Amino acid sequence: MAHIGFVGLGNMGLPMAQNLIKAGHQVEGYDVFDAAAEKLRSSGGGRAETVKVAASRADVVITMLPSGAEVREVYLGPLGVLESAQPGTVLIDSSTIDVATAREVAQAAAERRMLMVDAPVSGGVGGAQGATLTFMVGGPQPAFEKAKPILEGMGKTIVHAGGPGNGQAAKICNNMILGISMIAVSEAFVLAETLGLDAQKLFDVSSKSSGQCWSLTTYCPVPGPVPTSPANRDYQAGFTAAMMHKDLKLAQDAARQGGATTPLGAEAAALYGLYCGHGHASRDFSGIIKFIRGF
Amino acid sequence: MAHIGFVGLGNMGLPMAQNLIKAGHQVEGYDVFDAAAEKLRSSGGGRAETVKVAASRADVVITMLPSGAEVREVYLGPLGVLESAQPGTVLIDSSTIDVATAREVAQAAAERRMLMVDAPVSGGVGGAQGATLTFMVGGPQPAFEKAKPILEGMGKTIVHAGGPGNGQAAKICNNMILGISMIAVSEAFVLAETLGLDAQKLFDVSSKSSGQCWSLTTYCPVPGPVPTSPANRDYQAGFTAAMMHKDLKLAQDAARQGGATTPLGAEAAALYGLYCGHGHASRDFSGIIKFIRGF
Amino acid sequence: MAHIGFVGLGNMGLPMAQNLIKAGHQVEGYDVFDAAAEKLRSSGGGRAETVKVAASRADVVITMLPSGAEVREVYLGPLGVLESAQPGTVLIDSSTIDVATAREVAQAAAERRMLMVDAPVSGGVGGAQGATLTFMVGGPQPAFEKAKPILEGMGKTIVHAGGPGNGQAAKICNNMILGISMIAVSEAFVLAETLGLDAQKLFDVSSKSSGQCWSLTTYCPVPGPVPTSPANRDYQAGFTAAMMHKDLKLAQDAARQGGATTPLGAEAAALYGLYCGHGHASRDFSGIIKFIRGF
Amino acid sequence: MAHIGFVGLGNMGLPMAQNLIKAGHQVEGYDVFDAAAEKLRSSGGGRAETVKVAASRADVVITMLPSGAEVREVYLGPLGVLESAQPGTVLIDSSTIDVATAREVAQAAAERRMLMVDAPVSGGVGGAQGATLTFMVGGPQPAFEKAKPILEGMGKTIVHAGGPGNGQAAKICNNMILGISMIAVSEAFVLAETLGLDAQKLFDVSSKSSGQCWSLTTYCPVPGPVPTSPANRDYQAGFTAAMMHKDLKLAQDAARQGGATTPLGAEAAALYGLYCGHGHASRDFSGIIKFIRGF
Repeated sequence: MAHIGFVGLGNMGLPMAQNLIKAGHQVEGYDVFDAAAEKLRSSGGGRAETVKVAASRADVVITMLPSGAEVREVYLGPLGVLESAQPGTVLIDSSTIDVATAREVAQAAAERRMLMVDAPVSGGVGGAQGATLTFMVGGPQPAFEKAKPILEGMGKTIVHAGGPGNGQAAKICNNMILGISMIAVSEAFVLAETLGLDAQKLFDVSSKSSGQCWSLTTYCPVPGPVPTSPANRDYQAGFTAAMMHKDLKLAQDAARQGGATTPLGAEAAALYGLYCGHGHASRDFSGIIKFIRGF
Repeated sequence: MAHIGFVGLGNMGLPMAQNLIKAGHQVEGYDVFDAAAEKLRSSGGGRAETVKVAASRADVVITMLPSGAEVREVYLGPLGVLESAQPGTVLIDSSTIDVATAREVAQAAAERRMLMVDAPVSGGVGGAQGATLTFMVGGPQPAFEKAKPILEGMGKTIVHAGGPGNGQAAKICNNMILGISMIAVSEAFVLAETLGLDAQKLFDVSSKSSGQCWSLTTYCPVPGPVPTSPANRDYQAGFTAAMMHKDLKLAQDAARQGGATTPLGAEAAALYGLYCGHGHASRDFSGIIKFIRGF
Repeated sequence: MAHIGFVGLGNMGLPMAQNLIKAGHQVEGYDVFDAAAEKLRSSGGGRAETVKVAASRADVVITMLPSGAEVREVYLGPLGVLESAQPGTVLIDSSTIDVATAREVAQAAAERRMLMVDAPVSGGVGGAQGATLTFMVGGPQPAFEKAKPILEGMGKTIVHAGGPGNGQAAKICNNMILGISMIAVSEAFVLAETLGLDAQKLFDVSSKSSGQCWSLTTYCPVPGPVPTSPANRDYQAGFTAAMMHKDLKLAQDAARQGGATTPLGAEAAALYGLYCGHGHASRDFSGIIKFIRGF
Repeated sequence: MAHIGFVGLGNMGLPMAQNLIKAGHQVEGYDVFDAAAEKLRSSGGGRAETVKVAASRADVVITMLPSGAEVREVYLGPLGVLESAQPGTVLIDSSTIDVATAREVAQAAAERRMLMVDAPVSGGVGGAQGATLTFMVGGPQPAFEKAKPILEGMGKTIVHAGGPGNGQAAKICNNMILGISMIAVSEAFVLAETLGLDAQKLFDVSSKSSGQCWSLTTYCPVPGPVPTSPANRDYQAGFTAAMMHKDLKLAQDAARQGGATTPLGAEAAALYGLYCGHGHASRDFSGIIKFIRGF
C-alpha cells in the first residue's frame, strides 16, 4: 500500500482521504485549517505540518483545492510539491480547475520526472463519502497506471480521458451538459405546471422518452418522482449552485481559450450567476427551478 | 376490430395506418394528396373520398396533421369530423399542435358526446414504421380506455398524461428538453474538440455520469459512439431540424399562454431558427453540431 | 371639431381623452369601470353607457385596450364598434396588440367602409398627460389623413408606418430594441461597478460614443446621470416591467408568425419574465438593473 | 513637442503615429513588420530597430498591440519598455486588452516611477486616420495630464475614466452595449421585413423614439437610411466582426473576474462567435444582420 500525502481536506478531500485509509493506505494530511487535519488524524491518518513535509515523505501526493490559483501555488510555489517531492512521485490533482493551468502544472511535473494526472471528480459529497466517485483522468499512460489503484480506493468509475488536462476537459464538458440540462428540466416542469400537466406524468413520459437525462431520472428537481433527490429535502445541497456556477464559468473560460462557441453554456452560466447573485449560492443546484418559477 | 377513418397519410400517418391494417383493423384513409391514399390502398386499406366520408363510416377517427390550423379545419370546419361522425365515435388526434387548439377541439367533441384524445407521438418515422411509437395521451379516462387498444397497434409505450390537451403538453415539454439537450451535447463535443479531448472519451465519461442524456447515448451527434445515430450517415433525417424547430416554437407559445418563463427553451428555439434559416431545415436535428462548430 | 367616442379610459386612455377635450373636440367616453368614465365627465366630457352608444354617435372612435382579445371583442363582437358605427367613421385603435389581430380587425372595418388605423403609442403616462406621445400609425392613406388631426391633439410625433398593422409592427420592433437595450445598459453599469469604474464616468464615455442609446441618455437605470429617470426615485414607474414584458412577448409572437429569428429579443423577454415573476411587475422597467446586480 | 516612441504600426497604429507627426511631434516607430515601420518613415517619422531603442530615446512611449499577451511582453519582457525607459517617461497603451493585465502593467510602471495610462480607443480606422478617435483613459491624474496633449493629436474626445485599468473598463463596457445593440437593431429590421414594415419607416420611427441608438442612427445595418454606413457598401469593414467578437469576449472575461452576471453580453458574444465561425470574421460587424436573416 502507498504512503500518501493528501493536501486539501475540505468537504470532498476529507472523506476521500478517509476512504484511502480504509483501503489500507498510509495517509498524511495537510490543510490550511487545523481542524480538518485533526479530523483526519482521528480517522487513523497522520498529519503533515506543511505541504513540503507531506510531499517529501510521500509516494503519492493527492490534492483537492478550490481553484487554479491554489493548485498553482501548492505545486509551483516555493516550498511546493514540485520542489519537495522525489522524482517518480505520483501526483494526483483532483481539484476542478481550468485546463490551461492543469496542463502547465503537468508540464512542470513531467520536467521533474514526476508522474502527474489531473483527476477531477463527479459524484459530490455523497460520492466522496461512499467511495463511489467518478474520476475523469488526464495524463500519460504510465502515470494513469500508477494512479488507478489509488483512485479505486475512492471511486467506482475511473476513465482515462487522454493526455494532461483531459481530465479537466472531460469534467468541464460533462458539467456544462449537466448545468444546461438541469435548467432545461426545470423549465419543463414549470411549463408543465402552467399547462395543468402533473409533474409525475411529465416524469413518466420523459423518463422513457427522448427527454430522458440524469438531471431528470436521478436528480429530479421537483419533489416526488425521485425520493432521494434534494428537491425532497427543500433543496439542501448535494451539489451547490455555487459549484455548478464555478464549473459553468470554467467551461466558458475553456471555450474562449479553445475558440469554441457555446451559446447555451454561456446562458446557463448567466442563469446560475443570477441565482447565486440572489443569495442562493449554497442551495442545491436543482433549486434553480424555484428561480425559474418565480412566485 | 375497429373500423378506422385515418386522415393525413404523410411520412408518419401512412406507416401508422399501415400498422393498424397489420393489427387487423379495417382502415379507410383520406389525404389531400391522392398518391398517399393510393399507397394505403395497396397496403390493404380503403380509400375515403372526403373527410366527411371517412368520419361518418368510422368507429374511430385518427388524424395526423401538420398544425393547429389543419386540425381546426378538419374537426371543426363544415363537412368536418365533428359534423360527420356519430356520437360515441372515438377521436384520436396524433398531430403535434398547440395546447389551446387541442383543448378547444376536445371541448367541442365532448359537447357532441364523442370520445376524444390528443395523442401526439415520439419516435419519428422509424418508430411509426416499426410500431414502436410513444404516445402521450390527453383526455378523459373513458376516451383513453377506448383509444388505448388502437394505439397499441402503432406504438409500444402509451402514457395517459391527464385531461384534454395534456398529451400535447407532455410532448411539448419533453421536446423542449430534447432540443435544449441536443444543443448542449453538441456544444460539449465542439468544446472537447478544441481542448484536444477525443469524442469517444467524452462519450465514455458522460454516458456514465451526470451529463448522460438520450441526445448523447441514443442519438449522439458525432459519428462513432452510437453507430445508428444520423451523425453516422451525414445527418440524414431522422427527425428534421424543421420539426424540432416547430416543437420548440410550440413550447414557446405554450409558455406565453401559461405565463411560464423558459430562457433556455427560447434560446434553443432561436438557435434552431438560425439553423433552419441557413438552409438546413431538412437535415437531422442533430446536425446543429455543424452549425455550432462553424468551419 | 370631431365628435369622438373614446373606449378605454385607463392610465393612458383617460389623459388622452382629456387632451382631446382641451383640443376642442366633443368627447364621449366608455369604460368597464364607471369611476373612469366619471373622471372624464368631470373634465368636460360626456359619458356613453355602452360601446354601441359611443360608436353610433361618433365621427371618430378611439380605443385604448389591454390586448388583442379586448380589441377583437370591442370591434367585432355583437354590439361592437363595427356593428354600431356608420360607414365613413374614423376608427383609431391605440392599443398595443399583436399584428395579426390588428390586420384582421382593419380588414373587417374596411369591408364596412370605415377608415381604420392602428396607432399604438410611445411615451408612457407622462406623454399621455403632456400630449407629447409618439403615434406609430398603420392604415390606408385616406384613413391616416383623417386620423392625423385627431392624433395631433394627443401627441407630438405622428409617423405613418405603412398599411394596416404597420403601426403595431413599428411599435413592436421599436420596443424590442428598447427592452434589449435597457438590459444591455444595465449589464454595463453592473459590470462597471465590479471593475471599479464609476457610473458617471461610464455615462460620460458612452453617451458620446458608440454605446449611446435612449436607454442610457434619456432613461439611465442608475441614479445620478439623468436626474429625471425613474432610477432617481427608486424605480417608480414610468413604464412598468409588466408593460415591457408584454411588448417583448408580442414581438416574439410576431417573430413566430412572420418566420423571423430574434435570439436577443427572446432572451430579453425571458429576463423580463423572470423579473416580473419575482414580484417586480409594477416597478419601472429600468429596475431590471437590480435583478441583474443581485445582492 | 514630444519625442515619441510608437510600438505597433498596424491598421490603427500607423495612422495614429502619422497624425502625431502632423501635430508636430518627433515620432520613432517600431513594428514586427518592417514594411509598417517603413511607411512611417515615408511619412516623416523615424525608425527604431527594437522596442528597447524606441523606449530608451523617448519622452513618451505609445503602444497599439493586439492583446494582453503582447502588451505584457512589450512592457514587462526583458528588453521591454519598463526595462528600457527612464523614470518620468509617459507611457500610453492604446491597445484594447483585459483589465487585469492593464492594471498589472500599470502597477509595474508606477513602481518604476513612470507615468502610465491605459487609453484604448473608439472610432475605428476612420477615426484613426481622421484624428477623431475617442480615448477612454485610465490612470493617475498626473499621468493623465501629461498624456492628454499627446492624445489630442490623435483624437477628438478624451475622457478620464478613473484609475489604472479604467480606460479598458470603460471601453469594454461601452463595446458590450454596442455589440448587443447592433444585434438588437438587426433583429428588429429582420422582424420588420417579415411583417411588411419598410426599413426606412422603422428607421424614421425608432430614430425619434425610445429605440434610438448609435447602431441605428450612425451605423444602420440596412442600406439606405444612413448612406455612410457599411451596409451601403456590402458590409466592407469598418469595424470587423472579429474585433467586435474580441471585445465581447474581453467583456465576458471582465465579468467573470469581477463577479458580474451579463446574460445578453454572453449571448451577444456567442452570436458573434457563430458569425465569425461561419467565415465572416473580416466583414463589418453590422453584417451580422445577414446571419440573423438567413436565406
